Amino acid sequence: MPGAHRAAGLHRPRPSSPEEPPALEDQDLLLAAAYVSDAQYNRNVPFETSPQAVRLYHFYNHWTMRAATYFFIWVDLALALFEEPALFPLPFLATSIAEVLCLTAFFGRLVHFAKVTPQMVFWKDTKNICIMVTIVLTLIDLITYGSLEAVNIHGVRWSRALRPVFLINFPESRQIRRAFRSIRNTLPDILYVFLLFIFSVLIFSLMALKLFGDRGLKTVQGSPYFTNILDIAFELYVLVTTANSPDVMMPAYEFNWWYSLYFITYIIINTYIFMSVFLAVVYNNYRKHLKNEIRTLAYLKRHKMIEAFNILKVKVGTEFVVKEAQWRQLAKVVEPDISSSHLELLLRISDEGQKGYVDKTNFLRLADLLNIQVVTINIKRHPLEAWMPRVYQSSPSLLVQKMVRHRIFVWVYDVIILINAIFIALDEKNPLISYAEWLFLSLYIIEILLKLYTYEPRAYFGRKQFWNWFDTLIIIAALVATVANTTIQSARKYNSQQILDIVLILRILRLLRVIVSIQRFRVIVTTLINIGPTMLTFGGLVLVVYYVFAIIGMEVFHGKVHFFDPGSTSPDALVCGNPALKDSAFARGRYCRNNFNDLPASLILLTELTVVNQWHILADGFALVTHQAAKLYFIGFHVVVVILIVNIFIAFILEAFFVAYSLEKSEVETAIEKKIQELGVGVQEEEVQDGKLIDNVDAKDSGFSGDDGDNKRKALKGLYFRIASKKYKTVDALLQQMFESEIAPEDEGPSLEEILNFSPSDVHPKNPSFENSA
Amino acid sequence: MPGAHRAAGLHRPRPSSPEEPPALEDQDLLLAAAYVSDAQYNRNVPFETSPQAVRLYHFYNHWTMRAATYFFIWVDLALALFEEPALFPLPFLATSIAEVLCLTAFFGRLVHFAKVTPQMVFWKDTKNICIMVTIVLTLIDLITYGSLEAVNIHGVRWSRALRPVFLINFPESRQIRRAFRSIRNTLPDILYVFLLFIFSVLIFSLMALKLFGDRGLKTVQGSPYFTNILDIAFELYVLVTTANSPDVMMPAYEFNWWYSLYFITYIIINTYIFMSVFLAVVYNNYRKHLKNEIRTLAYLKRHKMIEAFNILKVKVGTEFVVKEAQWRQLAKVVEPDISSSHLELLLRISDEGQKGYVDKTNFLRLADLLNIQVVTINIKRHPLEAWMPRVYQSSPSLLVQKMVRHRIFVWVYDVIILINAIFIALDEKNPLISYAEWLFLSLYIIEILLKLYTYEPRAYFGRKQFWNWFDTLIIIAALVATVANTTIQSARKYNSQQILDIVLILRILRLLRVIVSIQRFRVIVTTLINIGPTMLTFGGLVLVVYYVFAIIGMEVFHGKVHFFDPGSTSPDALVCGNPALKDSAFARGRYCRNNFNDLPASLILLTELTVVNQWHILADGFALVTHQAAKLYFIGFHVVVVILIVNIFIAFILEAFFVAYSLEKSEVETAIEKKIQELGVGVQEEEVQDGKLIDNVDAKDSGFSGDDGDNKRKALKGLYFRIASKKYKTVDALLQQMFESEIAPEDEGPSLEEILNFSPSDVHPKNPSFENSA
Repeated sequence: MPGAHRAAGLHRPRPSSPEEPPALEDQDLLLAAAYVSDAQYNRNVPFETSPQAVRLYHFYNHWTMRAATYFFIWVDLALALFEEPALFPLPFLATSIAEVLCLTAFFGRLVHFAKVTPQMVFWKDTKNICIMVTIVLTLIDLITYGSLEAVNIHGVRWSRALRPVFLINFPESRQIRRAFRSIRNTLPDILYVFLLFIFSVLIFSLMALKLFGDRGLKTVQGSPYFTNILDIAFELYVLVTTANSPDVMMPAYEFNWWYSLYFITYIIINTYIFMSVFLAVVYNNYRKHLKNEIRTLAYLKRHKMIEAFNILKVKVGTEFVVKEAQWRQLAKVVEPDISSSHLELLLRISDEGQKGYVDKTNFLRLADLLNIQVVTINIKRHPLEAWMPRVYQSSPSLLVQKMVRHRIFVWVYDVIILINAIFIALDEKNPLISYAEWLFLSLYIIEILLKLYTYEPRAYFGRKQFWNWFDTLIIIAALVATVANTTIQSARKYNSQQILDIVLILRILRLLRVIVSIQRFRVIVTTLINIGPTMLTFGGLVLVVYYVFAIIGMEVFHGKVHFFDPGSTSPDALVCGNPALKDSAFARGRYCRNNFNDLPASLILLTELTVVNQWHILADGFALVTHQAAKLYFIGFHVVVVILIVNIFIAFILEAFFVAYSLEKSEVETAIEKKIQELGVGVQEEEVQDGKLIDNVDAKDSGFSGDDGDNKRKALKGLYFRIASKKYKTVDALLQQMFESEIAPEDEGPSLEEILNFSPSDVHPKNPSFENSA
Repeated sequence: MPGAHRAAGLHRPRPSSPEEPPALEDQDLLLAAAYVSDAQYNRNVPFETSPQAVRLYHFYNHWTMRAATYFFIWVDLALALFEEPALFPLPFLATSIAEVLCLTAFFGRLVHFAKVTPQMVFWKDTKNICIMVTIVLTLIDLITYGSLEAVNIHGVRWSRALRPVFLINFPESRQIRRAFRSIRNTLPDILYVFLLFIFSVLIFSLMALKLFGDRGLKTVQGSPYFTNILDIAFELYVLVTTANSPDVMMPAYEFNWWYSLYFITYIIINTYIFMSVFLAVVYNNYRKHLKNEIRTLAYLKRHKMIEAFNILKVKVGTEFVVKEAQWRQLAKVVEPDISSSHLELLLRISDEGQKGYVDKTNFLRLADLLNIQVVTINIKRHPLEAWMPRVYQSSPSLLVQKMVRHRIFVWVYDVIILINAIFIALDEKNPLISYAEWLFLSLYIIEILLKLYTYEPRAYFGRKQFWNWFDTLIIIAALVATVANTTIQSARKYNSQQILDIVLILRILRLLRVIVSIQRFRVIVTTLINIGPTMLTFGGLVLVVYYVFAIIGMEVFHGKVHFFDPGSTSPDALVCGNPALKDSAFARGRYCRNNFNDLPASLILLTELTVVNQWHILADGFALVTHQAAKLYFIGFHVVVVILIVNIFIAFILEAFFVAYSLEKSEVETAIEKKIQELGVGVQEEEVQDGKLIDNVDAKDSGFSGDDGDNKRKALKGLYFRIASKKYKTVDALLQQMFESEIAPEDEGPSLEEILNFSPSDVHPKNPSFENSA
C-alpha cells in the first residue's frame, strides 16, 4: 500500500542528498520571500533587490504599516464630520492640524515607497504623482482658507473633495482601483449609447412640446404642463428613472387617452430598452476587462514565483530544485504564524515523492498553497467523556445525545422559533407575553447547552462554523441585553432607549436561525456571504463617489434647508426655514431633514438619490433654494451612481452567480485540494457544518482500536485538515484559478513587458507602468 | 482558373450519371418537402406519412390557414373591447355569436390537426387538450351567463380570462410557449429565493413594529406610523420596489437619524441584493434552458433532413445522393416563389463539383440554405443614363453626382436638420417660422431627388435599405400631411387635431435622420432593430399576462372609480365618484382616469403598474373602494410581471448583446455564406448600405469592357447576391447556428426519443410528447 508507505515515511530520516546546499544567505531568502509574498497577495510592486531595499520592502508590507496608513486615511476622511458644516464642530485649527498630520503620514509612506522602488518606476507611476499633487493642493488650500478666515472672509475648502484620492491611490486599494479602471474602460462604449439616449430624450421632448405645449393643460399642482423645453427634458429624464410615473402622464391622459401611447412608447424605448442596453454594455465590458486583468495577474504571479525559484534553486541530478530545508525556511519567513502540522502538510503536497526537495512545478504552486486556508482540526474526545466516561457513556446520556442529533430536535426548535415570532408580533404590554420571553430565552440556552454536551466544544466553535457562532452569540447577547434591560427597568422604572432597541433587534435576529435548518436557504445565504468580501470593494467605490458628492453638496447647499423638530410650531418649519420652498413638493413631503447640513445627512440624502424614487422632488427643492442649474448636480449623481456604479454592481452579482454556478457544475478543484483529499486528511465541509464530524471520527476512532491496519489514517491521527477556502472563494480567486489551470506548468509566460501590455484598451500602451495591474 | 471553369460550367449540359433515377412519385416529393419545410421553420409536428395526410399537412401549414387562425384569435381577444365593461358596447348576443364563431374556427383547426397527426400523439399533447377544455369551458360559461342574463341576474364572464390559451397553444406560437416554459423552469429555483426574500421582509417588518410601533409617530398624512404588522409588511414590500422611498423613512428619520440605518440596511439587502439575485437566477436559467432547447431543435432539424434525404436518395457509385432534378423539384415545392437565379445559386453551393447530384452533407444544409435571405441585385445602369446618356454624362451632371456622393453633402444636411430642430423648438405662431417649414420640406425633397438622380433608384430602394425607405417615407408623409393640414386650415379656418398631431410627429421624426450619418449610432440602432423580431415574443408574452390580469381587474374593479371630465365641477370629481377615496393619495394625485372601466384603460393601468412607481397608491386606492385583500392582486401582478417577465426581458437583451458581440469578435460565418463570398457573387452589406454599391459596380462594369478575362464575374453579370440575413439574425438563429457547427456532418444525432428527453428539468420525462420542443 503505497499510501501507507508514504505516510509512514513522514517522520523517517530523509536519505541525505548527493550534495548538501551551502547555507543560504539571509538576504537571498528575504528576497525570495518578498517575491512569494507578493505572488501570494497579488502585489505588483517592482522593488529594488538590494538587501537593504528588500528589508525595507518587508517592513513596507508589514501589517502595522498598512494598518497605520488606513488609519490615517480614515482620520482624513472623517475630518468632514468636524469641519463646517459639522456634525460635531471643532475649531479650524484643530481640524487643520489633524489634516497636516495625516498628510505627513501619507508623505512618509510615499517616501518609504520611493526608497523601495526604483526611481524610474516611482516617477512614472501616476498613483504617486496623484498623491503628491493632492498633498500639495491640500496644503495650498489649507493655507489660503486659513488666511482668508483670519481676515474674516469665508472661503471654500475645495480640496476636501480630493481626499478620496488617498484611498484610491495607495497600493493597498487595488480592488477599488480596478473597479475605477473598469468604469473608465466602459466609458467610451457607454458614451455613444448615452448620447443616443440623450438624443432620444430630446426628440421626445420636442414632440411633447409640440403635442401638449399649446393645450393649456395643468398639472395636479395647477402649474402649466409641458410648456418649456428645458422643463420637459428634465421631466422626461426623470421619467426614465420612473420616479414621476404616472403623474407626468396624467394631464395628457385625462385630455385624451390616445396620448398615453406617447408615454408608453417613451418608457419602452428609454426606460426599458436603453437602460437594459446600459446594463449590457457595462456587463460586457466588465467581463472583458476582468478576464484580461486576471490573465495579467496570473502571469505576473507566475513570473514572481519563477524569480523566487531562481534565487533558491540548486541542481540535483539534471534538474534544478529547491531543497526541503530552504523551502521550510522560506515558508516560515513568508508566513511566520504557520503551524508546523500545516507546514508539514504543504511539504507533503509539494514533495510528493518524499525526495527531500521540491521541484519547479511544485515550487511555483507555493503561493497558492499558502493562500488555501487549511483549518487544522485536532480531533479529541468530548472533554466530559475524558473527565467522567461512565456518566457520559451511560444510557440516559447516550439517549440525550441521540435525541440532540436527531432531525426532529431541529424541527422542534424551528417550531419554537415560529411560536416565538408570533409572541414577538403580539403586544408585549401583556405581562404573560413578556414572561414568555424568558421562557424562550431559557429554551434557547438549553438548546446550546445540549449541543455542547453532545458535540465536542472546540469542533462546534471551529473557525469557520459561521452558523454555530451566529447562534450562540445572538443568544448570549440577547440574554445579557434582556438582563441589563430588566435591571435598569426595575431599578429606575425607566426604559433605556438604546438598550431596549438592541434587545428588540437581537430578539428578532434570533428568528434567522430558521434559515440554518433549511438546506436551500443556507446555500443561498452562504453564496451571498461568500460574495460579501468582494462586495466591500463596491463599498469602497461607493464611499469614494459619495464622499466627493457629499463634500460638493455641503459646499453648495449647506444651510439652505433647515430641519425643525417635529414638535416645532414655528411657521418656518413648514417651509424648512426657507420661504422659497413655499408650496413646493419638497416642503409638502416634509423632506426638511433631507439636507446637506452635515456629513451623515448628506450621505443619507445621497442614498435616497441612489434609490432614485422622488429624486426629482429633492432636486427641485434644492433648485428652488439656489438655482435651476442645481439640478445638474442631481442628474450628474444619477448618471454616475445609478447608470454606472449600480450597473457594475449588478454585473458583478450576475458574474459571481455564474461563476459559482459553473463551479458547482464542473467542480474546479485544484491539484492541491485533490491532494489533500488523496492524502485522506481532508474532511468534507458538510460533515463539520452539521456537527456530524465528531460522529464519523468517533466511528473511525473505534475502528482504530480494531487494528484494521489503516496505517495511513493512524499516522495522521489527531491531524485533520479542512480546506476552509473551498466554499469561501471570491470571484477573482476563482477566475484566476480557472485561468491558471490553463497555463502549462513549464510555460514561463510572456516577458514582463509583454504581460504589462496585455490590456487591449490600455490607455498608455507606451508607458508600461504597474498601474494597470497593481 | 478553376473558378472560371466552374462558373462557365453552370450552363453546360451535365454528364449523364450512370443510371437515371425512376420518375419520382409526387407523394414522395410532397413528403420530403414537408420534412424540409418543417426543418426550415423549426416546426416539430409529427404528421402521418400517408399521401392524403401529407397533402392535408401541406394545406395545414399554408399561410392562409395560419393567417385565418391568427385572425380568429385576435377577434376573440378583441371581443373584450365590446363586452361589458366595454369601450364600444355591443349587445351580449352579438359578442356571443362572434365568440362562438371563433370557437368553431379553433375547433376546425384542431380537427384539421387531428387528421394530420397520429391519434396517439394528438391525445398526448397537452396543447390540444388545453384548447379543447378551454372551448368547452367557454361554451359552458356563455350558456350560463346568457341564461342568467335572461332572468336579469348579472353573472361573471370568467371564461374570458382563458382566451389567451388559444394564443399560447396553437402550434404557431412556439416562441411564446418557449418563454412560458422558460418561466416555468425558473420557478423552482426562484421559489426558494423568493421565500427567503419574503422571510427577510417579515423579519424586518417585525423589527419595524417593535422599533417604531410604540413611538406615536405620524406619517405626513397624519396617520399612525408602522403600528400594524400587515401594513408594515406591505409598506416594506413597496419599499423593495422603491416606490415609497424616501417617504416611508421620513417619520423615523425625523425622530432620530440613526433609524435611517435600518432603512438603508433594508434597501441594500432586499432591493439591491435580492433583486439582483432574482435577475441572476432568471438569467442563469434562461441561458441554460435556451441552450438546451436550441440543442433539441438542432437535432430535430437534422433528424427531419435525414428523413427527407432517405426518401429521395439514389445510389451513385458507393454513396447515396439526391439527383439534381429531384433537388430542384423539391426546392420548388418547398419554396414555390423562389427565383430561378436564387435556385441556381443554391444548387451551385450544394453541388460544388457540378457533378449533377447533391451528396448527403450538402443536402442536409438545404433547410439552412433556404432560410438565408438572399437578395438578388440586378445591377443595371441608371435609367437616366440609358434614356439620355449625353445629358447624364455631361460635366455639370457628373459634378452634381460627385457632390451628392461627397461626405460634405451629408454634413450639410445634418446641419440643416439641426437648424430645423431649433426652428421646431421655437414658437410656430410666428409666420416667418411657419414659412421656414416649407423651406425645410423643399430642401429635404431636393435631397431625395438628388440622391435618386445619382444612385440607381431600384438599388436605392432595395429590400433591406431600411434607412433610405425611412427617409423617403417620412418626408413624403410629412409633405402630404402638411399639405392636407394647410388645405383644411385655409378652407375652414380650423386646425384638425388629428392631422396636426401627425404632422407634428412626422416633422420631428425627420430629425432621426441624423442617426444615419453617425456610424456608431447606426450600429446601436441596427442592433436594436435586429433584436426587434424576438422582442415581439415578449410582446406576446406580456399581452397574455396583461390580458388575463385586465379581465380579472375589470371583473373585480370596474365601475368602482369614475373619471370626470377635467372641466367638471361636480364634487364627486374630486373623489373619483367614490366617497371611500376621500383624502386618499389616489384622489389627491388625480388618478381617477386610472381605472378598470374598459380594456384600454385597464391595459394602460397595468403598464403603469409595470413601471412600478406609485403602484402602491393605485393599490391603496382600489383597496379602499373594495377591500384590503385587493392589494394581493397588485402584489401578484408585481411578482409576475416585474420580478419574472421584466427580468426575462433584461436577460434576453443581455444575451442578445453578448451573442451579437461574440459574433462581431469571432465572425461566425456558415459554410454557405463563405461559399457565396467564394463564388464572388456576394456583395458586402456595408457597400449597399451606403449607396456605394453602384460606384463599385460601375467601376467593375467598365473593367468588364476592358476584357480582363474575369470570366467568373462575366458569367454572373447582372446577378449579384447579398446575404440579407447576416446582420439580421435573431439570437435563436445565431445560437442554433453555433450549435449546429459543432455537430459533425456524419453525426446522425441521437434517436428521436433521446432528443425529446434532453431537457434536464423536463417535467414529464416519461411522457415524450412534442410539447417540449414544439
